[in-house]
Amino acid sequence: MATQQLIEYAEANSEVRAIYDDIRATRKTDYISNFWKVLANDPTALKRAWESTKQVMAPGALDPLVKEMLYLAVSVSNQCPYCIASHTVAARKKGMTDAMFHELMAVVGMANETNRLVAGYQVEIDERFTSS
Amino acid sequence: MATQQLIEYAEANSEVRAIYDDIRATRKTDYISNFWKVLANDPTALKRAWESTKQVMAPGALDPLVKEMLYLAVSVSNQCPYCIASHTVAARKKGMTDAMFHELMAVVGMANETNRLVAGYQVEIDERFTSS
Amino acid sequence: MATQQLIEYAEANSEVRAIYDDIRATRKTDYISNFWKVLANDPTALKRAWESTKQVMAPGALDPLVKEMLYLAVSVSNQCPYCIASHTVAARKKGMTDAMFHELMAVVGMANETNRLVAGYQVEIDERFTSS
Amino acid sequence: MATQQLIEYAEANSEVRAIYDDIRATRKTDYISNFWKVLANDPTALKRAWESTKQVMAPGALDPLVKEMLYLAVSVSNQCPYCIASHTVAARKKGMTDAMFHELMAVVGMANETNRLVAGYQVEIDERFTSS
Amino acid sequence: MATQQLIEYAEANSEVRAIYDDIRATRKTDYISNFWKVLANDPTALKRAWESTKQVMAPGALDPLVKEMLYLAVSVSNQCPYCIASHTVAARKKGMTDAMFHELMAVVGMANETNRLVAGYQVEIDERFTSS
Amino acid sequence: MATQQLIEYAEANSEVRAIYDDIRATRKTDYISNFWKVLANDPTALKRAWESTKQVMAPGALDPLVKEMLYLAVSVSNQCPYCIASHTVAARKKGMTDAMFHELMAVVGMANETNRLVAGYQVEIDERFTSS
Repeated sequence: MATQQLIEYAEANSEVRAIYDDIRATRKTDYISNFWKVLANDPTALKRAWESTKQVMAPGALDPLVKEMLYLAVSVSNQCPYCIASHTVAARKKGMTDAMFHELMAVVGMANETNRLVAGYQVEIDERFTSS
Repeated sequence: MATQQLIEYAEANSEVRAIYDDIRATRKTDYISNFWKVLANDPTALKRAWESTKQVMAPGALDPLVKEMLYLAVSVSNQCPYCIASHTVAARKKGMTDAMFHELMAVVGMANETNRLVAGYQVEIDERFTSS
Repeated sequence: MATQQLIEYAEANSEVRAIYDDIRATRKTDYISNFWKVLANDPTALKRAWESTKQVMAPGALDPLVKEMLYLAVSVSNQCPYCIASHTVAARKKGMTDAMFHELMAVVGMANETNRLVAGYQVEIDERFTSS
Repeated sequence: MATQQLIEYAEANSEVRAIYDDIRATRKTDYISNFWKVLANDPTALKRAWESTKQVMAPGALDPLVKEMLYLAVSVSNQCPYCIASHTVAARKKGMTDAMFHELMAVVGMANETNRLVAGYQVEIDERFTSS
Repeated sequence: MATQQLIEYAEANSEVRAIYDDIRATRKTDYISNFWKVLANDPTALKRAWESTKQVMAPGALDPLVKEMLYLAVSVSNQCPYCIASHTVAARKKGMTDAMFHELMAVVGMANETNRLVAGYQVEIDERFTSS
Repeated sequence: MATQQLIEYAEANSEVRAIYDDIRATRKTDYISNFWKVLANDPTALKRAWESTKQVMAPGALDPLVKEMLYLAVSVSNQCPYCIASHTVAARKKGMTDAMFHELMAVVGMANETNRLVAGYQVEIDERFTSS
């Protein structure tokens, strides 16, 4: 159980409601996830997190599905159960197929393996990887 | 300094040479990075790592640039200097622009932040994220 | 379920009882948490962990609340559910208010973000940060 | 070597200069660290990171020294060399004595140890740590 | 709940059945754990993971119990609940006693502590640890 | 450069000298590594760390080489350059051969990979792994 209460729309102050409204409009869904409802205990944190998320996850040089998969890859690597559950759903909504998910998992697994091989074998960085 | 020697082509046995040849043919470059040269101290490990890499990073449901960026995202999250240096170069060769790199970094930074917000606020997983 | 049994006071040997007594006296509470009851399966480990805890968390140049918040910050960053749950309660008992908790979380989130920005952008350490 | 250039004030655009000016005014120093100079390659990221930092690290329910020590504790736990070097200097400027630093390190070390003891012994969360 | 289905033997294709058969023969048990049943959603991943596991965990210069304990030590350090639960059982089957488990845990705890002491105190590597 | 001075024997106080003497006697070498010389800036921390190390790494149910390899496995997984360099040397002194080192690395790499596969595929713990 969270030590923080879930702040529902009905009981939220106007500052929090405005953010919930923006989340709903931006994501084209009525659903507000527990993450935002818990963060709403600190409206300043909610605002900062939402504005960053909105800006960072918006279409840009990378499309939203790629961004969602990068997010998921980091969350899997960090072993964050909530983030894995929620961003797997989000990535699927944006078009991640089973085949894409399996390939993502294979890359994340291998990167975690080779990151340690490099560390344990104390591999020095090739000169050509450090010059600008 | 690596506690393991770098195994150069000239001094490699035929098993290692065959893998170096395959790396060169697959990647269309003569260059063999320190990672492979160090792993070559254990030809079995070299073979296993190369065959997995070749299979996992090949074009599939995800294109090679997306895979390279997922790899980089995990390596940044794990703070592996060698892997960051080498895979940044690899991703750029496959077409990652400055703008794409900046967006990748923004996602990785934010995922690392929100992974901890979720943990610290002890957010429970929404029911809708757990049903199949 | 823990693979180790919870060792209750009634069934504990005299060595373990002496430590339970000291925990109770030091913390001014009768309650012994599951952490200690599980560690008690290895009385040597229990003794070592308790003596370190008692020494490290005692008032000193830093007051106990600050120490408890540092502990919590590390546990959140490491995403340890048990440690987050128990040390959030402990910090609140020592005076951590909601406002303090929110600020702690904001710092932990941001540190986790910027730690990766530094790694991914391969920022070199400023000379002035390395001279003694 | 960073793969990104250090953006010096003289060569920065007006958006970046405005942030450099604000960093200098807020921190009462002319010095801009490599972190900001590298982030300036992506002015949007620089702005987002600086505004969060300014907001999060400002005096509040926790004083700036405690916040700086929380930041340092996370960076030590994550083993980020740049962040450790820079935030050790920052914490000392805000009043962290040798004795305080040693106590911080003892807490960080112990939290990292006990986080794993809890995980490996599969300790279940005490009921009293989960009720609101 | 896993977002991926558990693939039981009866519903598996011939490729997956062949691997299940090999797992059973190699491990001298009929039991197939959830890990393999979930991975079987991607038969290529299942094959790659099983062949690596079979090769890496086989008796060699290190005996299987030592390998199992190294695996467990890493899983505890990474705080992976599934891996800790399954590899604790596996290590016990291979002969890990209570005393051995307690000593393993003590080493893992201490390594996690001293890894951070080294990082936070910014200890430079002794010259004698870097020469070949 | 460490922000803490290396405390040499000649300049150490009697408390620190006693520990240096015990390290030398226990390890049968005159050499004191930088880790201990830096920790000596906080004699209390030095004493606590040395006494734990001496107790934890002593022969017991596990022999010292296995303990040293567990320590190394965790340090590789955590990517701690100092700890990897020093404990690789220590393990070799205690008898770790090249073949043993390669097998250790293979296990550490694979555990890091499968820890993430389990997390990302959200594998539920098998009932038989949780019953006592």
